[in-house]
Amino acid sequence: MVRRWLLRHLTFYRLHAAYFLVLACVGAGLLWFCRRRERVGGSDGSPKLLDCVFAAVSALTVTGLLTVRVGDFSTLGMLVLLILMLLGSHVFTSLLPLYVRRFHFSRSPTHERQQVEKHCDTRQVQDKYLIAAYMSLEHKALITLCWLVPAYFVGVQLLGFLAISCYIAVGPPEVREVLQRESVNATFYGFFSTIAAFSNAGMTPLDENLISFPDPALLLPMSMLILSGNTMFAPSMRFIIWCLYRCTREKNPQKQVYEYLLMYPRKCFTHLFPQVHTVWLLITVVAFNAIDFVTFRSLDWNSAALKGMRTMDKLMAGLFQSINTRSAGMNVFILHELSAATLLLYAAMMSLYYESDLCIYRVKSWETDQVQDNKLSVQYRKLLSRDSAYLFLCILLICTLETRKISTDPLNYSVFNIVFEVISAYGNVGMSMGYSCALTKEENVTHSCEDVPYSLSGKWSANSKILLVAVMLVGRHRGLPDNIDSAIILPHNFITNILDTTCIFNHKKLNSN
Amino acid sequence: MVRRWLLRHLTFYRLHAAYFLVLACVGAGLLWFCRRRERVGGSDGSPKLLDCVFAAVSALTVTGLLTVRVGDFSTLGMLVLLILMLLGSHVFTSLLPLYVRRFHFSRSPTHERQQVEKHCDTRQVQDKYLIAAYMSLEHKALITLCWLVPAYFVGVQLLGFLAISCYIAVGPPEVREVLQRESVNATFYGFFSTIAAFSNAGMTPLDENLISFPDPALLLPMSMLILSGNTMFAPSMRFIIWCLYRCTREKNPQKQVYEYLLMYPRKCFTHLFPQVHTVWLLITVVAFNAIDFVTFRSLDWNSAALKGMRTMDKLMAGLFQSINTRSAGMNVFILHELSAATLLLYAAMMSLYYESDLCIYRVKSWETDQVQDNKLSVQYRKLLSRDSAYLFLCILLICTLETRKISTDPLNYSVFNIVFEVISAYGNVGMSMGYSCALTKEENVTHSCEDVPYSLSGKWSANSKILLVAVMLVGRHRGLPDNIDSAIILPHNFITNILDTTCIFNHKKLNSN
Ligand SMILES: [K+]
Ligand SMILES: [K+]
Repeated sequence: MVRRWLLRHLTFYRLHAAYFLVLACVGAGLLWFCRRRERVGGSDGSPKLLDCVFAAVSALTVTGLLTVRVGDFSTLGMLVLLILMLLGSHVFTSLLPLYVRRFHFSRSPTHERQQVEKHCDTRQVQDKYLIAAYMSLEHKALITLCWLVPAYFVGVQLLGFLAISCYIAVGPPEVREVLQRESVNATFYGFFSTIAAFSNAGMTPLDENLISFPDPALLLPMSMLILSGNTMFAPSMRFIIWCLYRCTREKNPQKQVYEYLLMYPRKCFTHLFPQVHTVWLLITVVAFNAIDFVTFRSLDWNSAALKGMRTMDKLMAGLFQSINTRSAGMNVFILHELSAATLLLYAAMMSLYYESDLCIYRVKSWETDQVQDNKLSVQYRKLLSRDSAYLFLCILLICTLETRKISTDPLNYSVFNIVFEVISAYGNVGMSMGYSCALTKEENVTHSCEDVPYSLSGKWSANSKILLVAVMLVGRHRGLPDNIDSAIILPHNFITNILDTTCIFNHKKLNSN
Repeated sequence: MVRRWLLRHLTFYRLHAAYFLVLACVGAGLLWFCRRRERVGGSDGSPKLLDCVFAAVSALTVTGLLTVRVGDFSTLGMLVLLILMLLGSHVFTSLLPLYVRRFHFSRSPTHERQQVEKHCDTRQVQDKYLIAAYMSLEHKALITLCWLVPAYFVGVQLLGFLAISCYIAVGPPEVREVLQRESVNATFYGFFSTIAAFSNAGMTPLDENLISFPDPALLLPMSMLILSGNTMFAPSMRFIIWCLYRCTREKNPQKQVYEYLLMYPRKCFTHLFPQVHTVWLLITVVAFNAIDFVTFRSLDWNSAALKGMRTMDKLMAGLFQSINTRSAGMNVFILHELSAATLLLYAAMMSLYYESDLCIYRVKSWETDQVQDNKLSVQYRKLLSRDSAYLFLCILLICTLETRKISTDPLNYSVFNIVFEVISAYGNVGMSMGYSCALTKEENVTHSCEDVPYSLSGKWSANSKILLVAVMLVGRHRGLPDNIDSAIILPHNFITNILDTTCIFNHKKLNSN
């Protein structure tokens, strides 16, 4: 009874939500115990419970907004943040449905095959061998992915870690000085930065994020990590599988598995797309970053934020910032020093997420893959009409809650900055305009005004923070389908789905074997 | 040849656009000759040509934004503005297709009837008497509307003019003092205000708009005029026709015409809706104004903008401002003194236009009237996805063009204020945050800083103003169909349209006669 009830009500969306809620609660509890208590009574005080919840949700949803300094948590607390980022990263969460499906496949293959044959008989499909071969290929493909994706996950981060560690060890001495001054272990810094970049969480152990190190030698591996952990994950996977396919000998049965993965990517994995889509994805990634960069280049090349930087550094920093706008949210600039037009474009880019973030098509079955080319516009329209209403309400509430601050400190708490923060939270980007004492009216500067190295939301009231926590969680679930994607079908729906597709399945390659 | 080419390429949209472009050019030329030249060399200078174009387009598109004072034009210039408002008002433009259709009907009824009969024969529809009766009814309905709508147009404005004139003559002496001080003729003021309110253009001959007179006795007739000229136009027309239907005796053939209008409103007039839609429209008008007012009541009841007002005045002023947010754009408050949340809501309301503004359904034919209930969401989604991209680009360009002003005077030229102005222009609302010296940084206050009584856009560069002119024009054409609405079908498409609908036409009432 309980099992049946569970199976009926457990949609992918609900499982996803439950996973995030449970981990957020556990994470917040752990952070609460790992906060630095010695800071109590200081200018900022020790993190409150709400700040711990905020940090846990921010790390888990890979947003990266913070209402306290990263340094307000002990090293153990940072480790908790690290684990939360790992568990919440897009690559990691894509693994779960993979293992669930593989488990199901290996558990009851005979029962399933019987069902398949029974069902297909009624549909007058005679070729049972075809179906058996297909089942076995799908199973093998799942097994392949079950080691390939973790290998990618570990491999890329290991490479990134090595590159960043090398930079810290061999690079300019200022980096080591900053780390020593802030008493951050160099290895830990490399470890943390790697995972934060790969999971696109955008936190670093240093309060100032990357503003202190606008060095191409550091920003390049970081960029690679950011891209391979999000927008470039699906294209990279396809490329790797294609390489494996090419390098495997004709007689090896594994070659057919790779070919199957390349031909029916959506049957097996949420982050594998057909060739056309993958190319299209690459084009959009390049185009969006190019738009960002060109705007930045033409409007902010000589702005205050880039003062004293060499041309090469400016170039890499601008490119890095463009890449970050899409999802990672790390900063090399103090954002409010950039021009309004650039910031407006960044806000638009944050709100305009596309498939690569979403990584799960809203397709009914794998056959429709070929006709779903105008995804971007459809998704964007849906997002706009449904979620924009909630987001607007949220912004309105925050403006209401912060009315007094808006009127006394209109430049820091401008409507645009609040909208920027909310969009950033919803898109899980984590960029923030921050808070600057230079922008407050002189008559309102109190004795304790201090530029805070965390997000603007850290200065908001508790209710606003709670709203933002909700926005981050909802944002992490944006665009998730219920159960319609064949790559994440749960066991109880699986048979019907397999049958729907198998009976149409008519792969000539299989026939020829 | 020319006639055929014209008929093929003249869609309703293009005719509409040509009408506005020609009138805008003529109006701008006239305003250029009617500017007050004696102000040359003053602090603001005489209006430049661009300002004349801006004013002409603003009046014609009933937006009401101005880059100069209304008083910078001579009385003759104001008269030009007045005529432009009249020619551009929604009620007036709704008359044009009506007369075109009536003209077509009366010109060649026999030819048409032949065509109808010929066409219907092929469709095996035998009842020719039915079609003849229908044709005659439609013709009579058009004739009825051709005097009813002008009567409404003149009648409502006459009543409004009388009410406002009475108020000026009998009301508190301060009003007359202000008018005398600004040397504005009282009758002219009443005349101008009436037309500006009814056409929803939102201009007044006084620089301060209505901020000097927050008197319920003036605001009430103004509200009535604003509502009956825009959101309440369609419901009022239906109500009047319903009254006429009720008051007409059973034997009078005109009774059948009214009944026909009530049953098939969309066949005859762009601003007549079926009963369900009319009720729904009323509900949305009330609901939207209620949301605006409740927000205002809860956030701004004690704000600086309402200082020194009595409760009754506050109530009426708040209600008036809510009504104005939808389209008219008259001000009783200095907007930037209101709370950020209220302003944000106003911005949203401006961008969220619904059918009553649009007044033309995107229906293929009148039969589908009954199933098009979820109009709002569909329209809103379409608007968002298509036009929001252009609007965003426009905002981005303006932010780029005004970069220097944004950085030196961030409170007056905040991103929100710029977005507010552009949305206001696009929605043809005409609310503006204005420019206030109190908001400039002290070090930047020049000797000549003067609070300007016109829109924020008056302080922008020429290129930005040109962009805004385009936005106003495009905004006035938002949601216009090409040729698909049966109520605006042009002669060359008319026959086919009539046939498509007539052959399905099966009105039992007609049969019984
Ligand atoms: K992020
Ligand atoms: K207006």
